[in-house]
Amino acid sequence: MRLATVRRDGGTRAAVGDEAGWVVFDETDAQELFVSPGWRDRADAALRHPARVDLEPADFATPVPRPAKVFCCGLNYRDHIVETGRPVPEFPTLFAKFADTLTGPTDDIVVRDSDRVDWEAELAVVVGAEVYRADRDQAGAAILGYTVSNDISMRDWQQRTLQWLQGKAFDATTPVGPWIVTADEIDPRRGLRISCAVNHEEMQRGDTAELVFDAADLVAYVSQITVLRPGDIVLTGTPGGVALGMPEPRWLRDGDVVTTEIDGIGALRNTIRYDVGARADAV
Amino acid sequence: MRLATVRRDGGTRAAVGDEAGWVVFDETDAQELFVSPGWRDRADAALRHPARVDLEPADFATPVPRPAKVFCCGLNYRDHIVETGRPVPEFPTLFAKFADTLTGPTDDIVVRDSDRVDWEAELAVVVGAEVYRADRDQAGAAILGYTVSNDISMRDWQQRTLQWLQGKAFDATTPVGPWIVTADEIDPRRGLRISCAVNHEEMQRGDTAELVFDAADLVAYVSQITVLRPGDIVLTGTPGGVALGMPEPRWLRDGDVVTTEIDGIGALRNTIRYDVGARADAV
Repeated sequence: MRLATVRRDGGTRAAVGDEAGWVVFDETDAQELFVSPGWRDRADAALRHPARVDLEPADFATPVPRPAKVFCCGLNYRDHIVETGRPVPEFPTLFAKFADTLTGPTDDIVVRDSDRVDWEAELAVVVGAEVYRADRDQAGAAILGYTVSNDISMRDWQQRTLQWLQGKAFDATTPVGPWIVTADEIDPRRGLRISCAVNHEEMQRGDTAELVFDAADLVAYVSQITVLRPGDIVLTGTPGGVALGMPEPRWLRDGDVVTTEIDGIGALRNTIRYDVGARADAV
Repeated sequence: MRLATVRRDGGTRAAVGDEAGWVVFDETDAQELFVSPGWRDRADAALRHPARVDLEPADFATPVPRPAKVFCCGLNYRDHIVETGRPVPEFPTLFAKFADTLTGPTDDIVVRDSDRVDWEAELAVVVGAEVYRADRDQAGAAILGYTVSNDISMRDWQQRTLQWLQGKAFDATTPVGPWIVTADEIDPRRGLRISCAVNHEEMQRGDTAELVFDAADLVAYVSQITVLRPGDIVLTGTPGGVALGMPEPRWLRDGDVVTTEIDGIGALRNTIRYDVGARADAV
């Protein structure tokens, strides 16, 4: 099953879909739907009927618009780590984003005050049940599903200090979507191709089977620290091929189209827009 | 004026106070009060009457229980930076906490899975108005007031990876309170003594006039990245004297009482409790 938040009549609605199309619900977003009691029975029932709505890519918003917590994992693809000559890490490297950091799967990404903008295709895990101090099995059972994200990073800000947060948390710069595929239908451990292309030139290609810490590992690990609740999101890290790793980095430019895709889930397609308007005269 | 969230009748209420005592409001917490239109006129009017409620230290909860964003600044006290031989930083080092990380001004701090628990007395800034891409003056005008916090840190977790978040985000480990003193009554740039004592032995003593990036600087800087809204919190960093800096670190132990104080605001008094119960069998 696919779960989405779709733009309808000037607002948004939850939608449930399959290969045949979409059924729109009254809830204002997917998160509101999947926290409501009995939602899965309602969704299954809706998909047993043939009636479907056709939706365009631009109709989709980010599926979970208001996660309370967004955790991100750093270096996490085994093949990429080995390639860079580093040891495979014992613990996941974690940092945070905010709900405001997220944006929709086809939305323009407006860049301000940065000229070292980079891509990071990532598998995103959506939590579906409260989970705290869980083991791997409990953590796996709390995963609602998976979606696609791109941890667009302002490398100049990220490298100003030892802590990456400020280069990772610009408002509306991390596209997430286009929809969640529920965990009963897909297993990233079995290997899903993940890729990022800039203007149709493939820059990253990886396989989610190469994750050092997989979705259940990360949810279990984070849950030792803090409770995760339905709608919270964990970004699982990016494979090799980012601009930062190039001898002559090819930073993202105004007008570049970034396509981020995971087989079996879907694709994000976002255009980079540089805001060259006056900068507030701060700091 | 002081703004607090106080425990009453099994729930919480907003309270407004001065040197003479407290007036309890119907709102369930200070945040709900200070986002309501005309709240300051209502609060001023209440304080013009002599009627006051006496409250005990244990009556106070953390004043803002549900900030959407909690930003923290790393190394930020000039005298401490100079003492350690490092250059004064050009940019603030930022990391995040979550609403769940916060706890009350007299609550026990329950430690799990760490044996390197450290203190960090910090001035906390509470945002009172929406602020985005602000200059210093705009940022200063958006500050509601100041409170006391202690960025209790699990150094073992913090140092597992390059990113500090996991050692800084354990649920209910960062006490904040006991109340907010509004910005019209106090100016940390003029110098407020900040201190941390463990079992009455003073471990940290600093002066908020030594902040490299002061409250308005930090709010302005963060606002270049992301919008801040009423109730969001910025922790401004800690002066010298933490256990991590000692040749033989004196980590916090079960039963230690940590007193964190800022002159002109108030004091936190929290007891460390080690939870030696079974750990979930995870990762």
